[in-house]
Amino acid sequence: MFRSGYHATSVRDICATAGAPQGSFTNHFRSKEAFTVEVLNRYFDYLKGLVHETLSDPNLTPRQRLERYLEVITDKLERDRWMTGCLIGDFSLQASSHSNLLRKRLDAIFKEWRALFASCIAAAQWAGEVDSDFDAEDLAEFLLTSWQGAILRMKVERSPAALERFKSIVFATVFKQPRTVASRKHQLAARKRSKRKSKRDRR
Amino acid sequence: MFRSGYHATSVRDICATAGAPQGSFTNHFRSKEAFTVEVLNRYFDYLKGLVHETLSDPNLTPRQRLERYLEVITDKLERDRWMTGCLIGDFSLQASSHSNLLRKRLDAIFKEWRALFASCIAAAQWAGEVDSDFDAEDLAEFLLTSWQGAILRMKVERSPAALERFKSIVFATVFKQPRTVASRKHQLAARKRSKRKSKRDRR
Repeated sequence: MFRSGYHATSVRDICATAGAPQGSFTNHFRSKEAFTVEVLNRYFDYLKGLVHETLSDPNLTPRQRLERYLEVITDKLERDRWMTGCLIGDFSLQASSHSNLLRKRLDAIFKEWRALFASCIAAAQWAGEVDSDFDAEDLAEFLLTSWQGAILRMKVERSPAALERFKSIVFATVFKQPRTVASRKHQLAARKRSKRKSKRDRR
Repeated sequence: MFRSGYHATSVRDICATAGAPQGSFTNHFRSKEAFTVEVLNRYFDYLKGLVHETLSDPNLTPRQRLERYLEVITDKLERDRWMTGCLIGDFSLQASSHSNLLRKRLDAIFKEWRALFASCIAAAQWAGEVDSDFDAEDLAEFLLTSWQGAILRMKVERSPAALERFKSIVFATVFKQPRTVASRKHQLAARKRSKRKSKRDRR
């Protein structure tokens, strides 16, 4: 399904690949749609594993965790030579207009995915690592959906260019570090120096 | 093809809808792939008309033209009740892994599309309307591909939320106006006032 797409994969193909009689399929699933929901669930479970691994990494700051997630996904995409993208994105454009069942499941997946990222982004904002007044939920949705766009472009180009461009622009703008972190330290040091100087002058 | 997708549309469907015998189809097109390239070309011609209309609008500044384009597309998407997205994005995830012919054509379309936006973005940077040191070509690619992600999310959600979120975040961050435009004016006015004051004081 990942390689051929939702429409091009028939129940017959699925059974042939699984080495299972069609009767078994219909015993377990009412339709290809119902089967695809199960495929999506398993895929999302796998993705959530990667999310957990990266967004809970105790050796990284919250902002670094976001970067790490995108790096891990980039590595996975490279392994498939930029030819396969994200099943969630694929099904969003292949199946969501044909199947209300799949569309609703995809919508729920996006919401759950977003929530996982929103807490990491909120932590980065709270730690003063991300300079943005936007709501963490909105930033999470923006990150995940824009990243889907980058993966779409990657598939057409068969190159990592869109992914690398995305990461460098998004972390320098939407998730930029406050300029003041560096400059504030500088200002404080300068102020201390001038205080010490004026003390000396008064003596 | 827009409604049913690439795979779910057969040559028979195309001929039935066009009221043409299948022989006519094979007279004009070697395959469904070749026909789809023609569909893509016509769709992109239509899109280029919208690009030209908005990005050359003499009543708007370059940055306003970019915003206008996204508004015009949003209006079109609303007319289809957020159910159909962009044919270029759809085919990118539906057909690019199956057909090298389509993938190459899609890649060329993205490049031409990006060039049109890059000149408008460069003009906005030159006019000091967009505060970014990123290359205009990279910003154009980022805008167009991230927007594809927003459209993908819109289709799943059947709501304009992702589009509106995208516009408000992207124009406040990636394409943000220089903070100095406002504050510089403020500084100049303050400086003038203090100059006038010191002149008065000296008299």
